[in-house]
Amino acid sequence: MSFSNTEPRLLPCWEAEVLISKTRVNGPGPLGVRNVVPITGGTFKGVLAPESADPRPFKGVVLPGGFDLQRERRDGVKELEAIYHMQTDDGVTIEIRNHAMVVKDETGQPTYRRSHIRVEAPEGPYAWLNTRFFLGTVESARPGEMVIIRSFVAV
Amino acid sequence: MSFSNTEPRLLPCWEAEVLISKTRVNGPGPLGVRNVVPITGGTFKGVLAPESADPRPFKGVVLPGGFDLQRERRDGVKELEAIYHMQTDDGVTIEIRNHAMVVKDETGQPTYRRSHIRVEAPEGPYAWLNTRFFLGTVESARPGEMVIIRSFVAV
Amino acid sequence: MSFSNTEPRLLPCWEAEVLISKTRVNGPGPLGVRNVVPITGGTFKGVLAPESADPRPFKGVVLPGGFDLQRERRDGVKELEAIYHMQTDDGVTIEIRNHAMVVKDETGQPTYRRSHIRVEAPEGPYAWLNTRFFLGTVESARPGEMVIIRSFVAV
Amino acid sequence: MSFSNTEPRLLPCWEAEVLISKTRVNGPGPLGVRNVVPITGGTFKGVLAPESADPRPFKGVVLPGGFDLQRERRDGVKELEAIYHMQTDDGVTIEIRNHAMVVKDETGQPTYRRSHIRVEAPEGPYAWLNTRFFLGTVESARPGEMVIIRSFVAV
Repeated sequence: MSFSNTEPRLLPCWEAEVLISKTRVNGPGPLGVRNVVPITGGTFKGVLAPESADPRPFKGVVLPGGFDLQRERRDGVKELEAIYHMQTDDGVTIEIRNHAMVVKDETGQPTYRRSHIRVEAPEGPYAWLNTRFFLGTVESARPGEMVIIRSFVAV
Repeated sequence: MSFSNTEPRLLPCWEAEVLISKTRVNGPGPLGVRNVVPITGGTFKGVLAPESADPRPFKGVVLPGGFDLQRERRDGVKELEAIYHMQTDDGVTIEIRNHAMVVKDETGQPTYRRSHIRVEAPEGPYAWLNTRFFLGTVESARPGEMVIIRSFVAV
Repeated sequence: MSFSNTEPRLLPCWEAEVLISKTRVNGPGPLGVRNVVPITGGTFKGVLAPESADPRPFKGVVLPGGFDLQRERRDGVKELEAIYHMQTDDGVTIEIRNHAMVVKDETGQPTYRRSHIRVEAPEGPYAWLNTRFFLGTVESARPGEMVIIRSFVAV
Repeated sequence: MSFSNTEPRLLPCWEAEVLISKTRVNGPGPLGVRNVVPITGGTFKGVLAPESADPRPFKGVVLPGGFDLQRERRDGVKELEAIYHMQTDDGVTIEIRNHAMVVKDETGQPTYRRSHIRVEAPEGPYAWLNTRFFLGTVESARPGEMVIIRSFVAV
């Protein structure tokens, strides 16, 4: 199958090294097993508006105090809802909602780790982030310590 | 900027011709101007698991009775939350939540029409849809009558 | 246990007779069994700002085209997310999101049928609805045909 | 207006003293001004199933690492979405989502501070919390330092 035109593309936008601490296992609830991964800090760097004639680099830190709310569904898929903030090096705070799914095969190997990312930024130099959808990847860099999130803008 | 590996890709998954009726203008509310576009029917066709060695075609109809809840934000972006159901030709009902943004330039021309799509399908031949994220495009085929939604799976 | 002051109270606000059609059984999905109840019409009447010195009656119809998305959780509780619109007799459209839970005892008798209701109204005479939380009851008046929703404002 | 029977009532369920730190002002975004209040700890105590023949006391601490995401809407109402966890003294973690509205009069005095509270608890002694809706009050005990949340179960 192929669609004639206006095919959307994904362009790299930012990469975050997100520091985490020990997972808290809340246990089985009405919609699945609930775990919480506290987010304790990190850094990010990337480029705004990579599709435009005027891409602009941006970078900064991940603020401590967010978390990743995880739910193991009954079909075995793990859903993640990470809510946290990134602060740019010029002092602007950006809210991140990263809704991910981790699918594993019979051996427990992850075969799919993607996410939908929504961003809420204040008016000003980062407002472009409010006007795009993002698609993310999730990679465990150091299990239990650091996760790498890559975000691609869908253009 | 480029990321080394595991770059996500978008593959065409399904295309829906969604029939709509006249927009109801609810008016300005606390989070923006609210409009509702009733969804009255339509058709779809596509392919499940296009990334796999065993892609399977699927098709069917859009059930009447859904809607697209639209909100014009104060930054001029129109957010759309379309909720409706598709029924496959073997009788399975699939729930669609299509969260779109339409961004326009100063002349009113749309410069960005993309969406995040989440699907909820019952167990069985369509359960693959529960395990992937989708990225959509929105195209007005016949203004006020039909919208074309193309959905790409992020793999 | 009792709390000293500022005890919240519930005051009757509106009652809706919501007409429904046959439940569509989507089947078991990743978060529970999914059913959909189409909403086909109805009427409502009530009073705005019942806590104030100036309560004002309001009434109108339930617009066809909404639905109640139901999910049977693995703990046996049925969660309902009803999304529909009510139109006042002076032509204003009000969006309703009614999130209910139905809990049953061992014999299948419902022991709890309550809901959280959020309202989105346009600016003007009904804007008060945007500024309050509501607590609802759900009663099956004619099984498969009509549901009575009573909404109480929390003041 | 009055409704004949099955009038819902609110019963005191728990009270939390939630410690907060300095508000971070993110600034005006596409849906309103965004502020974040970090949640740094606290305590709670209350009673489970107060409507039953067998109410049971429960208590514990508020875990650090949550936050209250605030949005000032264009109609002047402040919406709050607090997400945090409480841990009981027997080691069970309970997730809280407290969606509040603060309405002020012309002089800036709050005239309405109520919330919808959803709870997600694991199976076991606290599972009752998954089966009820709660209505909350929000009171600033020590501005910028401590908020008192009272939660009432709707029965």
